[in-house]
Amino acid sequence: MFKIKFDGMEAVEFDVPITVYEAAKSKELTDRSSLAALVNGNVTALSYELSEDADVKILTFADAEGKHVFWHTASHILAQAVKRLYPAAKLTIGPAIETGFYYDIDSEVAFTPDILSNIEAEMQKIVKENLLIERFTLSRDEAIKLMSEKDEPYKVQLIEELPEGEEISFYRQGEFTDLCAGPHIFSTGAVKALKLIQCTGAYWKGDQANKQLQRIYGVAFPAKDMLKEHLAQVEEAKKRDHNKLGRELEIFTTVDSIGQGLPIMLPKGARIIQLLQRWIEDEEQKRGYLLTKTPLMAKSDLYKISGHWGHYKDGMFVLGDEEKDKEVFALRPMTCPFQYQVFLNRQRSYRDLPMRLGETSTLFRNEDSGEMHGLIRVRQFTISEGHLILRPEQLEEEFRGCVELAKYTLDTLGLSEDVSYRFSQWDPDNRDKYEGTDEQWAEAQGAMKKILDNLGINYAIGIGEAAFYGPKLDIQIKNVHGKEDTLITIQIDQLLAERFGMEYIDVDGQKRRPYIIHRTSVGCYERTLALLIEKYAGAFPTWLAPTQIAILPIGFDQHEYAEALNAKLEAAGIRTFLDERNEKIGYKIRSAQLEKIPYMLVIGDNEKNAGTVAVRSRKEGDLGVMSQDEFIGKILCEIATKAR
Amino acid sequence: MFKIKFDGMEAVEFDVPITVYEAAKSKELTDRSSLAALVNGNVTALSYELSEDADVKILTFADAEGKHVFWHTASHILAQAVKRLYPAAKLTIGPAIETGFYYDIDSEVAFTPDILSNIEAEMQKIVKENLLIERFTLSRDEAIKLMSEKDEPYKVQLIEELPEGEEISFYRQGEFTDLCAGPHIFSTGAVKALKLIQCTGAYWKGDQANKQLQRIYGVAFPAKDMLKEHLAQVEEAKKRDHNKLGRELEIFTTVDSIGQGLPIMLPKGARIIQLLQRWIEDEEQKRGYLLTKTPLMAKSDLYKISGHWGHYKDGMFVLGDEEKDKEVFALRPMTCPFQYQVFLNRQRSYRDLPMRLGETSTLFRNEDSGEMHGLIRVRQFTISEGHLILRPEQLEEEFRGCVELAKYTLDTLGLSEDVSYRFSQWDPDNRDKYEGTDEQWAEAQGAMKKILDNLGINYAIGIGEAAFYGPKLDIQIKNVHGKEDTLITIQIDQLLAERFGMEYIDVDGQKRRPYIIHRTSVGCYERTLALLIEKYAGAFPTWLAPTQIAILPIGFDQHEYAEALNAKLEAAGIRTFLDERNEKIGYKIRSAQLEKIPYMLVIGDNEKNAGTVAVRSRKEGDLGVMSQDEFIGKILCEIATKAR
Repeated sequence: MFKIKFDGMEAVEFDVPITVYEAAKSKELTDRSSLAALVNGNVTALSYELSEDADVKILTFADAEGKHVFWHTASHILAQAVKRLYPAAKLTIGPAIETGFYYDIDSEVAFTPDILSNIEAEMQKIVKENLLIERFTLSRDEAIKLMSEKDEPYKVQLIEELPEGEEISFYRQGEFTDLCAGPHIFSTGAVKALKLIQCTGAYWKGDQANKQLQRIYGVAFPAKDMLKEHLAQVEEAKKRDHNKLGRELEIFTTVDSIGQGLPIMLPKGARIIQLLQRWIEDEEQKRGYLLTKTPLMAKSDLYKISGHWGHYKDGMFVLGDEEKDKEVFALRPMTCPFQYQVFLNRQRSYRDLPMRLGETSTLFRNEDSGEMHGLIRVRQFTISEGHLILRPEQLEEEFRGCVELAKYTLDTLGLSEDVSYRFSQWDPDNRDKYEGTDEQWAEAQGAMKKILDNLGINYAIGIGEAAFYGPKLDIQIKNVHGKEDTLITIQIDQLLAERFGMEYIDVDGQKRRPYIIHRTSVGCYERTLALLIEKYAGAFPTWLAPTQIAILPIGFDQHEYAEALNAKLEAAGIRTFLDERNEKIGYKIRSAQLEKIPYMLVIGDNEKNAGTVAVRSRKEGDLGVMSQDEFIGKILCEIATKAR
Repeated sequence: MFKIKFDGMEAVEFDVPITVYEAAKSKELTDRSSLAALVNGNVTALSYELSEDADVKILTFADAEGKHVFWHTASHILAQAVKRLYPAAKLTIGPAIETGFYYDIDSEVAFTPDILSNIEAEMQKIVKENLLIERFTLSRDEAIKLMSEKDEPYKVQLIEELPEGEEISFYRQGEFTDLCAGPHIFSTGAVKALKLIQCTGAYWKGDQANKQLQRIYGVAFPAKDMLKEHLAQVEEAKKRDHNKLGRELEIFTTVDSIGQGLPIMLPKGARIIQLLQRWIEDEEQKRGYLLTKTPLMAKSDLYKISGHWGHYKDGMFVLGDEEKDKEVFALRPMTCPFQYQVFLNRQRSYRDLPMRLGETSTLFRNEDSGEMHGLIRVRQFTISEGHLILRPEQLEEEFRGCVELAKYTLDTLGLSEDVSYRFSQWDPDNRDKYEGTDEQWAEAQGAMKKILDNLGINYAIGIGEAAFYGPKLDIQIKNVHGKEDTLITIQIDQLLAERFGMEYIDVDGQKRRPYIIHRTSVGCYERTLALLIEKYAGAFPTWLAPTQIAILPIGFDQHEYAEALNAKLEAAGIRTFLDERNEKIGYKIRSAQLEKIPYMLVIGDNEKNAGTVAVRSRKEGDLGVMSQDEFIGKILCEIATKAR
């Protein structure tokens, strides 16, 4: 007798072992969309046998875990098709990923687009065959024997590398068997729609010293219209991709002789970054921050005190050689130890706290060339860096202030709906990565949990994602291709103050160590710009648009009026483009549309004679004719309120 | 028969050789203030014998060259005094410098302050003795013999190193004789006032590998009141020295573990720099500049194209090793090759020109630790960098625009009266330092001369001060100690466009090379801040003051009123400090005075009840009581006009 509690239902009793599928079917909880299950939080196949009390949830493609199982099966279908067509190909690994699946294959045959479509056709046959997917286990020796017989040397190596005592499982569908931890869906027939995307190079185990393999990427869905929708989304994403659109709109560029990850902001990009930085600096000033400006490099001595030399040296750009040079410098990968010097400049008392320090701070990280991506992953970037130095009892209130500021900036930029929150904790199994004791971590993480819960923040937990000095609240965002990155971070640090000898005289005259919050107000400016390009497909809100208004005289007769109007708008602080080219008005309008300028003022004789403007909004279309002042009032209000 | 033309007079004829002194005396052109002469542009002693046609000017202490000769003689008096008191001391060199003179001496005796005042007393005796100063020459062998007999090994070495055929001259005053190219004044008696300032260490020939000597610094004047005035100025300079005052006022600091030449801007300094940068960015935007933001480092490839790798590598911070690493980066010492990429981003036509590019640009120069000084000489600094890319025919107009912008910023900051202009030319005798042909330099320098003359700029010429790619107009300024540095530079470059393959399609459809102007709008921000601290002794004009208004409630009863007033001022964008400390009003006033805050609003019951403010101006003293709005109007106007 055991009890199964299906998600959202009363527990059901069974007296003999039963598969998840049969148990769920008995309560009419399965249909064609059922793909796998969560049993006590672990993903299993529907064929998993239940024999004791358990919580069970049936997974469909709508669940992240369900999708993952589905795509994993699709990768087996891919491998099966390749082996049918190219029996000499050697299989390596084929996981599900965030946006589909891939399989890395060692083959003499180059998987050209033509060959990929042959493979895709073969996969569709396998789907039609609706092969049952069965799991079985073997001993290590039997497993090696099986894979050797099938001439799969990479699989043999994988088995040999499995830890002692690990169960070695295989999945079989028709004539095809693959070493795999699973789980998988019931049969191949559920993969109603699939597409192979591309083939790239990849090294065995990701190591350039190993043989280069071919990696075939694919996507798959349980219905044809889902694939169609997905492909349309991918197309749309490509159009919005900041790395493409940002270059087309002349927002930024990169140049080989300067290097990867070192983007050049063209005038439009530089203007947007300037506007964002001034906005944040002013907003922080309003919120009681003190502005600082600290050096971009320091002697290794400083990083030794902070611990970055030990924990982070490989990620830093180092100038000089400790063996040879009297002074070794490094470009800063973060601002902390620099900004602390402001606190340390003289003796501090409780009256000085909280001290909120803010800086528009440029940082450098020595990442591999291969990891660079447009404005999202770069070697030099600028952040709204800040450190709040506090009495411990001020922690919750100040942390709340940081979260409020972050929410304000996300709201203003229109990114609130796109972010998720991650409570990044340490990994107690990987102690070397962290400073401090178990007790200190328990205290810091406990404090942060309490604060986050009090703030009602809905967060996921990220084990091993903490900073080396403390836990973080990371505000995560996905780019247009679904790749997730951290946008904003707020961190609690009870450790570094001691390393730097930071202290304050408390009310009772005693010296005490302050707590520190490390935080940003908005995402790294380059990354934020990238996300804004993708969010707005280059059509920025008026307050951020590099050019806010295009003034388009129909002909030469209106130039004088247009110039006076332009001067008036410029004097009001509005960024204009006066198009006096000798071109037809239709050309000028199309040109302003391509530039995604928020407003066009078309100036003909009527406007000139009446002293008015004919307004065309990028968003709302034709707004009709209005007086100059009416229009200026409207746009100044839109800018001042940072309307989207 | 020969003619002597004295400065500003008709020529006079002489028939036998005559000394400058006698010739001038015959025309009543000498008096006690006569120190030396300029003969055909060369500095000579008054005893110099004229025997052919010459232009002659009698020099006094008011002339830079006269001062130089006077101080050189004072350094001989110093050496003579040392040898009288410490015959075993060995003399090396003893030049006049910009602000006095020094002598480097190798002596077992440490020249402590007590000993310095003994030496000073001995010098005064030598002055009283009014010894005649006589020149004589010797052959190389005789000269070595003389200095060997006097046991002056450094002098022997100097003689040995003199080039073949050089005249070897000595100057004798009383028992003392020194190897010296001269010239000198007539006798020691003219040095009516002198003072030894300090003794520091210095290496023989400035090379750390050589023996360390003692360098005694002194000043001297032809009158006692001049010395007194000079010492008072030095005291005042010390008080204004930004490196002292800037730290006291908590504008900046430096920290050993970060390194020399890497100042940390504390909140006040960071705010002033922010205000300056925004002002310049906005002013440039008004003048048609396009903002850019380019990376702070690049691969060596870029600097090889620009020529900096060949001409400037030693001054750069290099990351990595060309022998070992795949990619070698270097921090940028200037922005040129980065900003050119903006021009190069697409094909350009004459319609795009002039393209005025501006950037708030951080640069890095790897200077010796010993050369660092406060905010004036640093390893990392930020400039208002700009490059104007032009059709050749736009050169004069655009150059004028750059000069006008520089003059506007200098006027606004109040530095106009403190600067001088230098036309920095190449040194044809040091060709290796420069790119381009003789013709190209003649053309570029000719063009600049014409422009400068048309602009009516009064300039000095600096040979060998050009950039490697072209001539410069350097706007020079002296710090409070009289040390001169370049503040603003405007440069013509006809060479680099070719290296970078920059071209534009001209009106006739032909591809042409643009000219480039390299320029700054204002001095490097760190240096400008230093000069402003010294100029205003920390009492910045209101628009630049980190805190503009101190609100000083007399007691707790006025806190609520003061807080509402503070909120109103902050909402108007004014930077305030509300002093609610539990202190007497006198203490609060003194504290605001020490902080050099432009305005204090003292709030008592009268002000609270009447809704007014009692205004105390740092500059004008008590301004009486006025309404809140009247005061806000007054200060906003002062800020908007950047009044000084």
